[in-house]
Amino acid sequence: MFTLDPAFEATSAPLTEMWLCSVRLQLDARWPWLVMIPRGEALVELENLYREDRLALTDELIRAGQAVRAIGEAIGRPVEKLNIGQLGNITRQLHFHVIGRRADDAAWPGPVWGHGAAEAIDAKTLRTMQDAARRVLG
Amino acid sequence: MFTLDPAFEATSAPLTEMWLCSVRLQLDARWPWLVMIPRGEALVELENLYREDRLALTDELIRAGQAVRAIGEAIGRPVEKLNIGQLGNITRQLHFHVIGRRADDAAWPGPVWGHGAAEAIDAKTLRTMQDAARRVLG
Repeated sequence: MFTLDPAFEATSAPLTEMWLCSVRLQLDARWPWLVMIPRGEALVELENLYREDRLALTDELIRAGQAVRAIGEAIGRPVEKLNIGQLGNITRQLHFHVIGRRADDAAWPGPVWGHGAAEAIDAKTLRTMQDAARRVLG
Repeated sequence: MFTLDPAFEATSAPLTEMWLCSVRLQLDARWPWLVMIPRGEALVELENLYREDRLALTDELIRAGQAVRAIGEAIGRPVEKLNIGQLGNITRQLHFHVIGRRADDAAWPGPVWGHGAAEAIDAKTLRTMQDAARRVLG
């Protein structure tokens, strides 16, 4: 049975359910950032996914990238490069980060993970980001 | 036509050619670390891969993870967690990092990218790492 690690609740908000993944918006105003969590039991590494689910995973990661770009447009900071990461050093449940990067962002050209502290998203911007992402993700 | 960005030559050594990817060993003694570069023209983001190549990509990323674990065993530092990253903020040509992590490594639990300076691998260890990886990768 799929159970979401509570650690995700503290740092992200639910956006939608895709065929394979639960999609969440990372609550950090510095980047348009989605977290994709495949709904499966005891998944930790990519190799734990069924092979037939891995193609869906890449479909959904690409769609997440489009949503991240839509968020960037909606908040007036168009995305220049996508970053994808599957780390899980802190939260082991298998998850993939899809992040929109710009040369003027806080961590460029380094990775975003562990870079300073998350910045709160105000309610109006959060709504703008959610709407933009949902238009792409359905 | 596929041309390897010369930036990879400075930081990694060729290991083998898989069906989709050129596989290289990152020249950094701190981590067992492979770099997978899909052989295609003008690839920058995951979405630039043909859909039929994406399943092969995940096959090869999983195999790379097994090779990274084999390297960790061979050098007496067994891998505890795999990290996969596709960033490309500095070198745009599409590539995927597969890295073996341990709770006692230099950057744990943060990401390895941009963390301090690479440490040279001595010739004997390099040979040990290459042999271990090639036994898995063929």
